[in-house]
Amino acid sequence: MTTDTLPVLAILGGTGDLGTGLARRWVQAGYRVIIGSRTEEKAQAAVTDLREVMAERGLADIAVDAMDNLAAASAADIVTLTVPFSHQSSTLELVKDALQGKILIDVTVPLVPPRVARVQLPPQGSAGQIAQELLGEDVHVVSAFQNVAAAHLQEGSGLDCDVLVCGNKKDARAEVIKLVEAAGMRGFHAGMINNAAAAEALTSVLITINKQYGCHAGITISGLDRTE
Amino acid sequence: MTTDTLPVLAILGGTGDLGTGLARRWVQAGYRVIIGSRTEEKAQAAVTDLREVMAERGLADIAVDAMDNLAAASAADIVTLTVPFSHQSSTLELVKDALQGKILIDVTVPLVPPRVARVQLPPQGSAGQIAQELLGEDVHVVSAFQNVAAAHLQEGSGLDCDVLVCGNKKDARAEVIKLVEAAGMRGFHAGMINNAAAAEALTSVLITINKQYGCHAGITISGLDRTE
Repeated sequence: MTTDTLPVLAILGGTGDLGTGLARRWVQAGYRVIIGSRTEEKAQAAVTDLREVMAERGLADIAVDAMDNLAAASAADIVTLTVPFSHQSSTLELVKDALQGKILIDVTVPLVPPRVARVQLPPQGSAGQIAQELLGEDVHVVSAFQNVAAAHLQEGSGLDCDVLVCGNKKDARAEVIKLVEAAGMRGFHAGMINNAAAAEALTSVLITINKQYGCHAGITISGLDRTE
Repeated sequence: MTTDTLPVLAILGGTGDLGTGLARRWVQAGYRVIIGSRTEEKAQAAVTDLREVMAERGLADIAVDAMDNLAAASAADIVTLTVPFSHQSSTLELVKDALQGKILIDVTVPLVPPRVARVQLPPQGSAGQIAQELLGEDVHVVSAFQNVAAAHLQEGSGLDCDVLVCGNKKDARAEVIKLVEAAGMRGFHAGMINNAAAAEALTSVLITINKQYGCHAGITISGLDRTE
């Protein structure tokens, strides 16, 4: 397995459930992953956990590092943001310069606690649009992974869940779809960054369904057979 | 087959693709359906078509009537609105008094032509919220069916598509879920009327996917197995 030709990935806020879930999937697929956190120490603890989980799965030789968020964003080719909505803007301000010319995968869902089961989109339309406006046009913001249960990502098994991939640049969306597939799911070109509102709103619907069924629900796209 | 205990259904704007699709499904399930349109003549033409399609499927004895929108709303127990977004408010103003105490199933998707593949939710949050605010608390607005392709509804075969059902009253949502099931699909309690934003936004994403695949896509909810 070679990582020479693969982009280096950073996950900012990579110590949370979703971040560690993505890290496990991407490391397993052979990517070099940098776990970013507010302090290098916190990131290092997550890396230690990650090495243990991977060793249990028989993968001792993985490419993973711990850094603070700014160092992680600087060292990576593609940067993923998995922080709570309340920390989205401050984290992006911190790493804005380091992101120029790169792809930012925004996984932020604009949940407003305590009513996380209620759709409450921000005035800008979506967290994806907030990120794109804050970072400027030279950062390719691609919104993805909002509807994937962290619990399922952390498992080693297959995922019955599709990923809506939104962003203003088709090439950047295509790069992210490769990472969706590397994580074991189908990714769909889902339109411009405005369309992130759909995936972000859907998360509150899935939380509503999870409460009723005691499950971790996701969505799949149906009816893909050509009809014309 | 008896219709005595079933609610009488009206479909306002029932001459369009989605309205005729729902009418076919509900008539086939034994419901009495009133097709509403701006004029009774237009509604009558749709009823004639409906009788022909049903006769081809071997159903000669169906309970279907044509009325103008106001008469249809007055005569029905549960009223479904399937008009373009640009006609939503004016149609609801017309029938507001006739809807008091009833369930309104709002199928409106706030598409803004020509960019229908781009999510452009209204300042109120969703078309569902617009309807609830306009009609007042004594009308139980339930949002549903935004992600079902009319072409698939019009077919007689099975539907691989789930329906998100949003509204402020659980009992009203449960009534609508019965109608979703009568139309051959699974319906999910998807939260308060605010959550209609998710299904409405998703329609633009599905339009985006339809363009790529030449299909009529929908969504299904996955991961419903209890995990806790």
